[in-house]
Amino acid sequence: MPVDAFHYDRRVAFSDTDAMGVTHHANYLRYCEEARVAWMRARGLVETHYPHTNCVLALLEYHVWHLKTSTFDDALRIYLQTRQQGVRVTFQYAMYKGDVRICEARTLHIPVDHKELKPMRPFEAFVKVMEKEKWTETLLSNS
Amino acid sequence: MPVDAFHYDRRVAFSDTDAMGVTHHANYLRYCEEARVAWMRARGLVETHYPHTNCVLALLEYHVWHLKTSTFDDALRIYLQTRQQGVRVTFQYAMYKGDVRICEARTLHIPVDHKELKPMRPFEAFVKVMEKEKWTETLLSNS
Amino acid sequence: MPVDAFHYDRRVAFSDTDAMGVTHHANYLRYCEEARVAWMRARGLVETHYPHTNCVLALLEYHVWHLKTSTFDDALRIYLQTRQQGVRVTFQYAMYKGDVRICEARTLHIPVDHKELKPMRPFEAFVKVMEKEKWTETLLSNS
Amino acid sequence: MPVDAFHYDRRVAFSDTDAMGVTHHANYLRYCEEARVAWMRARGLVETHYPHTNCVLALLEYHVWHLKTSTFDDALRIYLQTRQQGVRVTFQYAMYKGDVRICEARTLHIPVDHKELKPMRPFEAFVKVMEKEKWTETLLSNS
Repeated sequence: MPVDAFHYDRRVAFSDTDAMGVTHHANYLRYCEEARVAWMRARGLVETHYPHTNCVLALLEYHVWHLKTSTFDDALRIYLQTRQQGVRVTFQYAMYKGDVRICEARTLHIPVDHKELKPMRPFEAFVKVMEKEKWTETLLSNS
Repeated sequence: MPVDAFHYDRRVAFSDTDAMGVTHHANYLRYCEEARVAWMRARGLVETHYPHTNCVLALLEYHVWHLKTSTFDDALRIYLQTRQQGVRVTFQYAMYKGDVRICEARTLHIPVDHKELKPMRPFEAFVKVMEKEKWTETLLSNS
Repeated sequence: MPVDAFHYDRRVAFSDTDAMGVTHHANYLRYCEEARVAWMRARGLVETHYPHTNCVLALLEYHVWHLKTSTFDDALRIYLQTRQQGVRVTFQYAMYKGDVRICEARTLHIPVDHKELKPMRPFEAFVKVMEKEKWTETLLSNS
Repeated sequence: MPVDAFHYDRRVAFSDTDAMGVTHHANYLRYCEEARVAWMRARGLVETHYPHTNCVLALLEYHVWHLKTSTFDDALRIYLQTRQQGVRVTFQYAMYKGDVRICEARTLHIPVDHKELKPMRPFEAFVKVMEKEKWTETLLSNS
């Protein structure tokens, strides 16, 4: 487990399961979004994002790999790392159920204006935080 | 079946099921919303609603009764009726799977401004349509 | 605020908002479900429920009243009380954003077998817990 | 537009929008799932899938590229193509709003047993259909 990385914990809700008895895949994207928001809060960046400012991290692309299933009430731990390259912000996620890695994901974002949806420069506070974030090339085994 | 009433057809999506193998209850509210939009389209009222105007039919209250379950790929038919009383707009819904009534619902709305969320007068086109809508006191068995 | 009642805290996710800029109503039902599961965990009842047993608290009916809106990242507190009357289990919910009550809800359930969806007797541990739960007739102002 | 490919039409629901006023990204995965089911129905394959058999097309991986946004009530057309390579089944999707391509996606599946979630051989009817499906290497511009 990537013990140094930021992590976010959440349990699988009953409404997130499907008729196969497992977590429906579309919900993992919601879990990634929650992990990003938790990371922003931990870094003191909530105030630089909608609804507190006009800036939103719009999602351009995502790629998700399912390794194992999870189901109702499973306790998931989502490790996350992020880096900025020009206007592009990448997040990578490794999700665990206990010791077992069940899912990997990568999302690509750019900061945009909340109303016009046009690219904008990220806030200085955001850039300063990003400069200190650690990045491990091998967090994901699939990408 | 309330053959005179407006109806909307949709199948249950796989993502709408849960680990009990049935349609998760929260999705019936989405089906009701879809039925309201389909009714607005049939009545030529889409142009009087967000995003074409600043008016949204905000939801104040809802009450749903589950009589039977449904599951993936079931073809549902949702009968709907509506009436206006002052600023309040009520919709009632009776959902069928084949001949069997599986769900009843009632939702209560008021027109509000999309941004300020303050009550506003409904458009004249809306009022004119509402004056012609039929209402049957006995559509729902539970309310 | 009903300070004696069990409560569950959660923030509004970005994916739970809609184009009005507020929490979409169908998500409040998911918050109620999460609050029920949190209550079961606090009472040591998770082991008497699916997927640990064949028992599920099926939802028969729900009624929700919206008093105020909420939006992304709002911290919500959901107070909950429950009682059993024969095979029927009722939950009532009062949701707060800070000091302001924004939503009230009532859900009605019966225990059913997870696969056959037939009514079953609740587990003894469940009954014992229910006998000790407090109930306040005036938790909800609307029902 | 890939006029020869199978397509599925659907409008964006109000509940699918978010506080940016656009379709929340996680919903595109639901639209892809609906398009797959519509394709199965068009090919006469619904009877070879859960709940009619024990077979489910489990999702292993997906990759989605957002080119443009969409919003409430937009009419989307989703073109789809599929091919089988050993046990793996790939679907590609190109989504249009009018003439404008707004989203591309790729999903990777294997047939599994609905209860045990173990890989199983696809039904003969499924294999026969797959042998006739057309595949265009250039449907997606990004993959």
